Amino acid sequence: PSCCSKPIRPSFIFRTQIKIFLIKSESFLTLRSETMQPRTSNPRFSDFVDKQTGYTTKNILAAPLMNGKDPLGVVMAINKVGGNEFSKADEDLFTKYITFATVIALQHYTSYMYNVESRRSQVLQWTASKVFEELTDIERQFHKALYTVRTYLLCERYSVGLLDMTKEKEFYDEWPVKLGDVEPYKGPKTPDGRVTDFLSHLNVSASRTPPVDHWALVSGLPTYVAENGFICNMMNVAADDYFTFQKEAVDESGFVIKNVLSLPIVNKKEEIVGVATFFNRKDGKPFDEQDEQITEALTQFLGWSVLNCDTYDKLNRTEWRREIAAEMVIYQTKATPAEVQQILNTKEKFDMNPEDCDQREMYKLLRANIPEAKDVDLLLFSFSDLPVSELDLIKCGIRCFFELGVVEKFKVPAEVLTKWMYTVRKGYRDITYHNWRHGFNVGQTMFCLLQTGRLRKYYSDLDAFAMVAAAFCHDIDHRGTNNLYQTKSTSPLAKLHGSSILERHHLDYSKTLMAEESVNIFQSLQKRQFETVQHLHDVCIIATDLALYFKKRTMFQKIVDATEPMADEKEAIAYVSNNPIRKEIIMAMMMTGCDLSAITKPWEVQSKVALMVAAEFWEQGDLERTVLDQQPIPMMDRNKSDELPKMQCGFIDFVCSFVYKEFSRFHKEITPMFDGLNNNRVHWKELADIYQAKVDAIENERKRLEEEQAKKATGEDGGEGGKSKTCTIF
Amino acid sequence: PSCCSKPIRPSFIFRTQIKIFLIKSESFLTLRSETMQPRTSNPRFSDFVDKQTGYTTKNILAAPLMNGKDPLGVVMAINKVGGNEFSKADEDLFTKYITFATVIALQHYTSYMYNVESRRSQVLQWTASKVFEELTDIERQFHKALYTVRTYLLCERYSVGLLDMTKEKEFYDEWPVKLGDVEPYKGPKTPDGRVTDFLSHLNVSASRTPPVDHWALVSGLPTYVAENGFICNMMNVAADDYFTFQKEAVDESGFVIKNVLSLPIVNKKEEIVGVATFFNRKDGKPFDEQDEQITEALTQFLGWSVLNCDTYDKLNRTEWRREIAAEMVIYQTKATPAEVQQILNTKEKFDMNPEDCDQREMYKLLRANIPEAKDVDLLLFSFSDLPVSELDLIKCGIRCFFELGVVEKFKVPAEVLTKWMYTVRKGYRDITYHNWRHGFNVGQTMFCLLQTGRLRKYYSDLDAFAMVAAAFCHDIDHRGTNNLYQTKSTSPLAKLHGSSILERHHLDYSKTLMAEESVNIFQSLQKRQFETVQHLHDVCIIATDLALYFKKRTMFQKIVDATEPMADEKEAIAYVSNNPIRKEIIMAMMMTGCDLSAITKPWEVQSKVALMVAAEFWEQGDLERTVLDQQPIPMMDRNKSDELPKMQCGFIDFVCSFVYKEFSRFHKEITPMFDGLNNNRVHWKELADIYQAKVDAIENERKRLEEEQAKKATGEDGGEGGKSKTCTIF
Repeated sequence: PSCCSKPIRPSFIFRTQIKIFLIKSESFLTLRSETMQPRTSNPRFSDFVDKQTGYTTKNILAAPLMNGKDPLGVVMAINKVGGNEFSKADEDLFTKYITFATVIALQHYTSYMYNVESRRSQVLQWTASKVFEELTDIERQFHKALYTVRTYLLCERYSVGLLDMTKEKEFYDEWPVKLGDVEPYKGPKTPDGRVTDFLSHLNVSASRTPPVDHWALVSGLPTYVAENGFICNMMNVAADDYFTFQKEAVDESGFVIKNVLSLPIVNKKEEIVGVATFFNRKDGKPFDEQDEQITEALTQFLGWSVLNCDTYDKLNRTEWRREIAAEMVIYQTKATPAEVQQILNTKEKFDMNPEDCDQREMYKLLRANIPEAKDVDLLLFSFSDLPVSELDLIKCGIRCFFELGVVEKFKVPAEVLTKWMYTVRKGYRDITYHNWRHGFNVGQTMFCLLQTGRLRKYYSDLDAFAMVAAAFCHDIDHRGTNNLYQTKSTSPLAKLHGSSILERHHLDYSKTLMAEESVNIFQSLQKRQFETVQHLHDVCIIATDLALYFKKRTMFQKIVDATEPMADEKEAIAYVSNNPIRKEIIMAMMMTGCDLSAITKPWEVQSKVALMVAAEFWEQGDLERTVLDQQPIPMMDRNKSDELPKMQCGFIDFVCSFVYKEFSRFHKEITPMFDGLNNNRVHWKELADIYQAKVDAIENERKRLEEEQAKKATGEDGGEGGKSKTCTIF
Repeated sequence: PSCCSKPIRPSFIFRTQIKIFLIKSESFLTLRSETMQPRTSNPRFSDFVDKQTGYTTKNILAAPLMNGKDPLGVVMAINKVGGNEFSKADEDLFTKYITFATVIALQHYTSYMYNVESRRSQVLQWTASKVFEELTDIERQFHKALYTVRTYLLCERYSVGLLDMTKEKEFYDEWPVKLGDVEPYKGPKTPDGRVTDFLSHLNVSASRTPPVDHWALVSGLPTYVAENGFICNMMNVAADDYFTFQKEAVDESGFVIKNVLSLPIVNKKEEIVGVATFFNRKDGKPFDEQDEQITEALTQFLGWSVLNCDTYDKLNRTEWRREIAAEMVIYQTKATPAEVQQILNTKEKFDMNPEDCDQREMYKLLRANIPEAKDVDLLLFSFSDLPVSELDLIKCGIRCFFELGVVEKFKVPAEVLTKWMYTVRKGYRDITYHNWRHGFNVGQTMFCLLQTGRLRKYYSDLDAFAMVAAAFCHDIDHRGTNNLYQTKSTSPLAKLHGSSILERHHLDYSKTLMAEESVNIFQSLQKRQFETVQHLHDVCIIATDLALYFKKRTMFQKIVDATEPMADEKEAIAYVSNNPIRKEIIMAMMMTGCDLSAITKPWEVQSKVALMVAAEFWEQGDLERTVLDQQPIPMMDRNKSDELPKMQCGFIDFVCSFVYKEFSRFHKEITPMFDGLNNNRVHWKELADIYQAKVDAIENERKRLEEEQAKKATGEDGGEGGKSKTCTIF
């Protein structure tokens, strides 16, 4: 209002508006409105400004601008016009004016702080946006983040120095130092003892790895910050003589360093990983507390985000280690040329490119070296591996593919087939039951179900090829312990796979072989065919998880029910083969039929194999007791081995019976398996009965002895029972 | 000022201060100070408030409060006191007052916005602090972050629902759907097609996995947000009938939902990963635009930070896969009981616990089964592996440890030693040169240097044990290509190790064997001894990197120079063995001496071995040509195989000569190696000279023919030169 405009100059506060915010809070907390007159008599008057300007200050009327308890600034009226001193009336008027001045100052202050907070939010949000964009190394991450937020920093240039994070030198570089031939490093070090060599230095205008005499480093400030971890705000570089800032323009752009703000970048482990330095505030003024706050928020965030870079590094290293180990597994498991030659039986040591030789000749040679299917009963459900050597089983496996007619059709090079089959064998561990013999038996049974069992009519040649191959691989690298044991022992397999733990591992393994060209029997297939093969491997191998058996039971039964009344075979073929899901369900049940097929074998085979299965279970039971400190279930408890026949009967009744009964109903050609099963059921029942009779006899004997004892007790000396009777009488 | 206080009520704007900020900007942009009178005649007057309150509005004087072009609110004076309408003077006064009112309103507005930005910064900083604290799963990360920032959100409760991120169902769960036996999922889905089942639900007050009828989910709002990705601000839950919010208190605390703000959490791949919902603003008002901004910044940050959780998951999975592969490598490489038995030659199949048997008896048995050192020249520098089978070399390796006397001293169980030695052999690949034979030779030479060369006097028994073991392992799992090839082919080994690539791998491998108890020959050592052994492995195996050879050359020479004049052997022993660095330098040079020892062998051996080395180099050269499409260096170029003798001479002169000369000077017992080297130098020089003579002869013949041709050209028909001569004549 015009009434207030005379004695003091209202524009004054606007001229000093920026300065208001530079006043340190503490010194003004006690300020009250006060007049000083005459100047000479007041000990608090300083003539500093008068000496600088030549102006003569006679008297001052001053008051603080307060935001609650925080001072925002001071308003001063200088040299009363038309008087020797400010009057009481001037003071009253001045105080009234202060109310309005406070409102204006507060508005400026709040608005400035709003801008600061707003920039801080922006800096954090944009930094986060870049940091979470991808995993990358620290240089790239910092560069991206800083480049993105540079406009919010309101400075002309910035630079970031990154420290070497390696804590130890190589021992052979330390030798000369330890021998005293070379001086040990005496330069600057971070608080945790690392050498403060800047590994690299990011700068908007400079190259990525500038020389040590780069203008951003030569001052020594970044090194000082790295050494001490302080935030350094150099308000006036020209006046500084501690650091050696370049006085002249740093480059042809004419850029001269005026003021510098340098901050350490500290990770969550409290290690200094780098130093961020900001040059020349955009408005020419020195960096203030708020600039410090914003850049501190930024560098803190960047420091924390080093977790991502460290993780990136760790992930890469882990992946490389995994790749190295995976290659070693393949190298150690892959059949050697000598092993392949054992089977191919070529005259020359065989180690050539499959493309280089006549495959027809190779097929002939190979067929001549592997037994005919009929000679070793490969086409019979009653086939037994027991009299056959492990090497011959490899040969038999190869024979199955020739019998299926898929070798020539899908152009599988003879030596690749041989190498694959041998490699599969080597992939099986030499454990009690789930070894190569079991793997072979499942493959052979699959072959039988397709050929002898005539299930092949529903499937293409490619399907049959994949199914038999998957069956051979279905338990590869089994460790002799089941899924539950993997879970309980928290093995890496269990951590990796949530369900069907081992099955997924067998599947992974079989796919690893497909990825290795020299043993990939599917190498000549087209992409689509190859995908089909992979999918069928998924279906077949996962299907061997008995936990999934009950899920597919009714689905399979429905198909059998539906096809049973069909008089025309073609109708049934169409019903199944035109529906990929039905094909897969039958396929999955075939895998179960193969996996459990030992139970359908002639009694002399089954009785031996059942003991191997049991032995492996007992070994797991032993591990559970010793390693996991748990009591195994009866099936795995070797102390309950006498109950094996009874448990076999239970297993036949609750699991196996359905499979073979339904398959026999589906295809009468499969009836031999069901017959075999029932025959074994009789044997196991017999054994179970004998054992039960023994148990009963012992139990009866025990009861008899007990009763006898009881009789004796009452008859002879009365005992406790007698005593109480006596008591009752009384 | 008091002069302005009469006609309008200045407190009015303070009473409506919060409401100011709820006015939408657009509708006020054209507002100017305006009076409306009489009310009935003005079409813009709405009697809504009068009807609600019973108050009669007769006339209004209104003006907007502007912040530049943005309206902050409106001030209205209602019903002129002492008059029928506001006068021109009222309007003028009112307009003057508006200036002050604007300042106050602006201050409130700015202060509010400052608070919003400040909260946003805090929310972001604290969220970052938690997100970067550790790698963890999404549930824990979100829970930690939200719990930390909850005070800045100014709401009574919050909840976070996480979505199932799996995109595909297991195929056996899909079968019933595909067969039409089970209805496909018809419920809500995210925009990218995922089922919006909330996998888990975090809530400050609720358990981690609440039922679907939890009060925070039952309304259907989180599902709606997950389906559509919208931010939903429900200002008045009671009036809403689209969602079914629980009307009564949700629990015994009496908490009733009043207003709700729900936001999708979206990752960097633009997938909705969850929904964050905030209930009841602390001050009872509905959530406003600024609340939306703060929570949006938060959920955006959380969404981005899912990168960390995904990485955590990926890192774990990679690590598990690595562990699985590492176990498979050990399984496939570890000597089997049958293989151990081949050497131990026990009557029973040997597969028992080392602790279970009498080690003295086992030592006797083992010693009886392995050849005596003197019988196979193990103590001679001129030992040749060529006539010995690979299996016998394993036995010879075992013999070395018995000769050193370390087996009994360090209680190495006989079968562990056997298994370790056999496993080391299996760890070597069957490649042209860097195979088990080379590994054995280096171990045997180390044994010779210690025993025959009498270098053992500087070392403890433990040192000698570690040095010979490291020598046997020094090239384990070599792939027949050198470090440069690893780098050029960017193999995982090169990515993992920055320098001494293969050496670090051999070292890793040898340490893996130490970590596997059943093959750990150092299993009986104390912790400190075991650490010494590990360190000596570091020194010895890394030392075989020829790139480091020149670094240690002068250091070694200094030691030799220093000990040469010492008359007393004890003095030299003290000089070396009291200084661990000198011991290590000699040790490192011994490794080089062993690694290159083939060049010191009798000519009939060296001539054969040199060809194997060359053959492996040529194979790498072939790979460089075919795989890397690069021209190999002459040493690896099989087209330059004729130059082998010349290159051998160069290799002897520039690398080998120093080693054996210095060692012979150091210990005269080692002179046979230097003699052998010089003898081979003569042979190679001879061959080089023969080849050079051939080259020279060819060159001379070429020159002769050339000169002849030139003579002919000038003598017979003149040719071009003749023609021009003729021309010159003219």
